[in-house]
Amino acid sequence: MSNNLLQKQADTIRFLASDMVQKANSGHPGAPMGLADIATVLSKHLNVNPANSKWLNRDRLVFSGGHATGLVYSLLHLWGFDVSIEDIKNFRQTNSRTPGHPEYGHTHGIEITTGPLGQGIANAVGFAMASKYAKNLLSEEVINHKVFCLCGDGDLQEGLSYEATATAGHLGLDNLVIIYDSNSITIEGDTSIAWSEDVKKRFEAIDFEVLEIDGHNFTQIDDAITKAKTATKPVLIIAKTAIGKGAATMEGSHHTHGAPLGADEIAASKVKAGFDPEESFYVSDEVKAAFDKTTTGSLIEKAWDDSLSVQSKEKIEMLQNPDFDSIDYPEFEADTSVATRDSNHKILNAISQALPGFMGGSADLAPSNKTELKGAGDFPVGKNIHFGIKEHAMASICNAMNLYGLFRVFSATFFVFSDYLKPAARIAALASIPQHFVWTHDSIGVGEDGPTHQPIEHLTQFRALPNFYVFRPADATENVASWKVALKLNAPSAFVCSRQGLKVLKDDRAFGEVANGGYLVKKRENATVTIMASGSELMLALQTACSLEEEGVIANVVSVPCYDLLVEQEKTYIDTIIDPNTKVFAVEAARGLEYYKFADVVYGMDTFGASGPANDLFEQFGFTIPKLKAKILADLK
Amino acid sequence: MSNNLLQKQADTIRFLASDMVQKANSGHPGAPMGLADIATVLSKHLNVNPANSKWLNRDRLVFSGGHATGLVYSLLHLWGFDVSIEDIKNFRQTNSRTPGHPEYGHTHGIEITTGPLGQGIANAVGFAMASKYAKNLLSEEVINHKVFCLCGDGDLQEGLSYEATATAGHLGLDNLVIIYDSNSITIEGDTSIAWSEDVKKRFEAIDFEVLEIDGHNFTQIDDAITKAKTATKPVLIIAKTAIGKGAATMEGSHHTHGAPLGADEIAASKVKAGFDPEESFYVSDEVKAAFDKTTTGSLIEKAWDDSLSVQSKEKIEMLQNPDFDSIDYPEFEADTSVATRDSNHKILNAISQALPGFMGGSADLAPSNKTELKGAGDFPVGKNIHFGIKEHAMASICNAMNLYGLFRVFSATFFVFSDYLKPAARIAALASIPQHFVWTHDSIGVGEDGPTHQPIEHLTQFRALPNFYVFRPADATENVASWKVALKLNAPSAFVCSRQGLKVLKDDRAFGEVANGGYLVKKRENATVTIMASGSELMLALQTACSLEEEGVIANVVSVPCYDLLVEQEKTYIDTIIDPNTKVFAVEAARGLEYYKFADVVYGMDTFGASGPANDLFEQFGFTIPKLKAKILADLK
Repeated sequence: MSNNLLQKQADTIRFLASDMVQKANSGHPGAPMGLADIATVLSKHLNVNPANSKWLNRDRLVFSGGHATGLVYSLLHLWGFDVSIEDIKNFRQTNSRTPGHPEYGHTHGIEITTGPLGQGIANAVGFAMASKYAKNLLSEEVINHKVFCLCGDGDLQEGLSYEATATAGHLGLDNLVIIYDSNSITIEGDTSIAWSEDVKKRFEAIDFEVLEIDGHNFTQIDDAITKAKTATKPVLIIAKTAIGKGAATMEGSHHTHGAPLGADEIAASKVKAGFDPEESFYVSDEVKAAFDKTTTGSLIEKAWDDSLSVQSKEKIEMLQNPDFDSIDYPEFEADTSVATRDSNHKILNAISQALPGFMGGSADLAPSNKTELKGAGDFPVGKNIHFGIKEHAMASICNAMNLYGLFRVFSATFFVFSDYLKPAARIAALASIPQHFVWTHDSIGVGEDGPTHQPIEHLTQFRALPNFYVFRPADATENVASWKVALKLNAPSAFVCSRQGLKVLKDDRAFGEVANGGYLVKKRENATVTIMASGSELMLALQTACSLEEEGVIANVVSVPCYDLLVEQEKTYIDTIIDPNTKVFAVEAARGLEYYKFADVVYGMDTFGASGPANDLFEQFGFTIPKLKAKILADLK
Repeated sequence: MSNNLLQKQADTIRFLASDMVQKANSGHPGAPMGLADIATVLSKHLNVNPANSKWLNRDRLVFSGGHATGLVYSLLHLWGFDVSIEDIKNFRQTNSRTPGHPEYGHTHGIEITTGPLGQGIANAVGFAMASKYAKNLLSEEVINHKVFCLCGDGDLQEGLSYEATATAGHLGLDNLVIIYDSNSITIEGDTSIAWSEDVKKRFEAIDFEVLEIDGHNFTQIDDAITKAKTATKPVLIIAKTAIGKGAATMEGSHHTHGAPLGADEIAASKVKAGFDPEESFYVSDEVKAAFDKTTTGSLIEKAWDDSLSVQSKEKIEMLQNPDFDSIDYPEFEADTSVATRDSNHKILNAISQALPGFMGGSADLAPSNKTELKGAGDFPVGKNIHFGIKEHAMASICNAMNLYGLFRVFSATFFVFSDYLKPAARIAALASIPQHFVWTHDSIGVGEDGPTHQPIEHLTQFRALPNFYVFRPADATENVASWKVALKLNAPSAFVCSRQGLKVLKDDRAFGEVANGGYLVKKRENATVTIMASGSELMLALQTACSLEEEGVIANVVSVPCYDLLVEQEKTYIDTIIDPNTKVFAVEAARGLEYYKFADVVYGMDTFGASGPANDLFEQFGFTIPKLKAKILADLK
C-alpha cells in the first residue's frame, strides 16, 4: 500500500464531503472526515460491481450512521456507481439523487435505507443471516461474501444494537464485520456525559472477536480488516478516530457533526492537506483510478458467474423469482370456528411448502403467534428463526433479509408489541421492503392479559403509515385472499389476527375484491344503512344487520380487510360499495378514527381495554349485537 | 432465619399463585413459583408501609416480569396492602382489583404498570435516579431507601434493558438492586435457542457489581441482598432458578409459564410440600405473621417522620405540591418569527425557574430540541439529564421519575424518533403518568434530512393513543397556553414543535380555549367554509382564508392545538366553533386521517416526505396559499 496515495484518496473523500455540506449549507461533515481513512482501506477489500449493483455475491456495506451521506455518495461516485459529480453537487436538494440520508431504491448502490440510529447494525446482522442461509442452500463456493457495517457511538447506545449484535454472536455470524467509528463525540458533547461502558468487554460477552485500532493508521486498518475476514466469529473493530479529522482547527469538535465547516475552515484544511483551496469537488485521475471498481467488479462477477453450476443457477433463479401461483392454499369449511392466527398458521405452512425462500419466526411467541413452519427445521439450517425477545432487532433483521435478493421473510409478535418495532416497520414502508408482519392477539379479544396486552390505537397507527398495508381478515377465507394480495405487493404488509375463533363465512363473497381493500359482503335493495367492519367485528356487523331488519332497517355490510387498499380505490368503486345514499356506520374494537373518512359514525374504543374473559370485555365495551343495534337505532333518530 | 418457616412462606406463595391461575383458568404460575424463595427473603429486607403505600422513603419494588402477577398480588396481600383473599380469588376477572398484569393506580401498592418486557428494569433505573436526585436535594438522612427489581430472561433480551442498565452503570446508581430470575426458559423453550451471552460479563462491562447465587438457597439469597444493600455500584444478582419450582412433575418446564398447572399437578405439588391438597388459597397464621408489614411499616415511617427537620418537611411539601401558578411565563411579540422549539425552550426554563422539581433532558439532541435548562447544572447534581442516544430508556426512566412522588420530568427527541419510545409512551397513558414529551422537528419542515427524519403518521398515531394529549401549538403564544393546560393534566402530554420559525399571531384570540383543544381564531359572518389547522399550517389556513375572500368565499378558521382535548368536548361547543352549515376543510402537513371526524375534506400527506429545503417541500407537497386555495375552490364546486 502506498500511504501517500491512500492519504490523497482519504483527503479526497474528506473534501468532497465537506464541499457537499458547504454547498448544501446543510449536512454532516464530521463523520465522513473521521471515517475517510477507514473507508479508503475498506474500499480495497470490498468486492462490488458498479455495473450490477444487485450481483448476488457482492460484499454488503451498510452505513449505519446514515447521516454520513457525504461519505456514502463520495464512495459510490468514486467506485463508479451511477452517482455523478453533478449528483454530488446537488446534495440534499429537492429531487436530487443524493438526499440527506441514504435511501434504498433512490440512489444506485445503496443497500438499505439508514439514518434512524441502530437500524444499520441490525440490518447488517440481517444481511449476514441471509448470507448464512444462502450458503447453506447453495454452497460456500457460490456464497462467500462478507457483510461490513460502519457504525458510530450513537448506534451502539441504541438498545436495538444490543439486540441485533447479541443475535449475531449467538448465531456465530463469521461473515459479519462491524467497524465502530469511536470518536467519543455525540451531539450534546463528549460521549462520556452519558455513556461510559467497556465496549470491548460488552462485545466479548456476546461472543464477538474484538480488535482495537487507530482508525487513522492505514496499516492497522488493513491488518484488522484482513484478520476479520478470516475470523470464526463476528468481529467488532473498534477504531479510535477524531471526528472532523483533517479539519484545520475543528478536528475533534462536536461542531463538525451536523453543520457546514465554513468556507475558511475548508480552505485552510485543503491547504494543510496539500489540496488547492480554490478548487471544490476535486478528484484527481490518480485517486479516481485507485478507487474505481468498474473493471475489477465486472471481472469478479464474471469469474463467479462462470464458476456456477447449472444446478446453482437454477436454484438462484428459482429463489429470485418465487412462483406465488404454485402455492396450494388451505381451504376452510364454512360455519366452523377458526381463529385467524390458526388459519394464518396453515397459510404460512402452505407458502413455505411451495417456496423454498419463504421463512421467518417470532420474537419468542411462536406457539402463541402460530408461526412454526412444520418440519422446516431451525435457522440457520432450517427456516424457523428463533429471534428471542427482541422484537425490534427481529424486524430490522427481516428488513435486510428481504432485501438480500433471495428470500421472503416474515416476523411475528403480539399486535400490541408492534410498538417495539415501529421504527423498523417505518423503514420497511419507506424502502418498500416486502416484509410480512404477523401480529396476533388483535384486540380486547386478548382477554385476561389485560390492557398492557390489548392493542387499541395500533390499527390506526399502522394504517396511518404510508406505503404499509395492514390486513385484518374477518375469517380464514379472507385470510387466504389477503395473503394472495400481500405476496404480490412491493411493500410491507401486516396480518392482524385474532386469538379467538372466528366463524368461517359461507363462500358467497367475491373474494377477489380483497384486493380492493373493502367489498360488499351483504347487499340489500333499498338499504338505508351501511355498516363497515373488519376482523372479528364483521360477524358482529352481519348479525346486527339481520337484527336491524327486524326493526325494518335495511343495512348493507362492507368488509374492510385492508383499509390501506380501500383508500387507494377510485371514488366510483367506493360509491358502489358504500352507497352514498345510506347512513354509514363503522364498527371496530379499536380506536377507529380513520373510518371517519367513510363513515358518519364510528363505534370504536376511546379508552384502553381491561383484564377479564374476552366475551365479558366485548360486552363491557359495547361490541354485542343488542348494544350495537341499539346504538345504530339511536343514531338513526 | 428459620428455613422451615421460610419454606412454608415460599410454598404459600407458590400455591396461592397456582390456585389463582387455576381458578381463573388463565395466567402464569411458572415465574411466581420460581421466584417464591427469592421473594420470601427479599420480603424481610423490604421497607414498605401498607398503611401508606405512598410513603416517600419506602423501598421501591418493581416487578419487571409483569406476568408474575400471581406473585405480586400474593405478596401485597401477605404484607397487608389492600388486596384481600377475595381479590386474589377474583384474579383476572372483569372489574377485579387483580388484573392479568400489574396496573398502577388500579391495585393498592403497585409502583408502576408492567408487563411489556424490559419496561420494569428501566422504571427501576428511573426510580433509582429520582431517589438519587431526591437525596441530593433533601439529604441522605431523609432519602436512603433502595430500589429492587425482579426481572427475567425476557427483560434482559430486550434492548431497552441494555439502554437502561448502561445508564444505571454510567450514573453509578448504588441504590439499585436488580435480581435476575435466571430460569433459562422462555415461551419457545430453552433460552439457548436464541440467546447465549455471558450475562455476568455484560453487566460488568457497564460497571455493575454482579453476584451469582442459587435462587432457591435462602442463605445465599439473604447474603446477596445484604451485600447488595451496601454496594457502591448498581448490583445485578443472577439467581439460578427453576421455573415452576415446587411443581410435582413440571418443575423446570416451559409449560408452567403461561397456563394453569392443572388440578392434579397442583394437588400433587401440595402433598409434596406438606400442604393439604384439598385446601385452596391457604395462608396459615404463622405465615401471615411472618410476611405482615403493617406494624413494622407504620413504625418505620413514624420514626422517619419524627426524624425530619422542619426544613425537610417544607421542602418535601413544596416538591409534592408544585405551584403551577407561580410560573412567570415568557411573552412573545406579535409578528415576530419564533420556532415553537425556541418558544418551548423559554417556557421550559420559566417552569424550571419556578419549580425546583421540574427537570428533564434529551436523548442527545438537547441543542436541537432546545431543552437545556440554563444554569441548572447536570444530573444528578443538577436538572439537565443527558440520556444519551437511548430514546426508549429515556421515556421509561421518566415514567418512573414522574411517579416517584416529588418530580415532574420531561423527555425530548425528534418527533420522528418518538417511534423508538412508543411502548413507554403507551405505559404513560395507561398509568396516567404526567410525563411531558418534547418532540421537535415536527413535519416536512425538517427539510434536508429527508424522509427518515420527517414525521408523517406520528400525529395520528399519538392522537389515537387513549389518555395521551398531543399539543401542536401554532405559535409561541399558543405554546404557552398549551403548557398551562398540560401541567394540570393527570396524563402524559406531548409538545410537537417546529424546527422552522412560525409567526407569532396578534393576541386577539381567546387563549383560554386552548383547554378545549380547538377554538375559532378567525370568525366571519356568513361563512360558508371552515378551515381547521394546527401548528405551522394555522398561518397557512389564515392566509388562505384571506385569499379566498378575494374570490368571495368567506371562511372561518379553527386552530386545533390539541386534537385530543377537542374530541372530548360536547357537541354544542364543537358546533359553535365548527359551524355545521359550513363545508369543513382540514389542513395538516401530516397524515391527517383523524380530522375526518370533523372535516369533509382533509389536505394531508399520503406519502413520505423528501430531502430538500423546507420551503421547497411545502411547495412540492401542496402546502402553499395558492395551492391550498385552488384545492378548496375545486372541492367547493
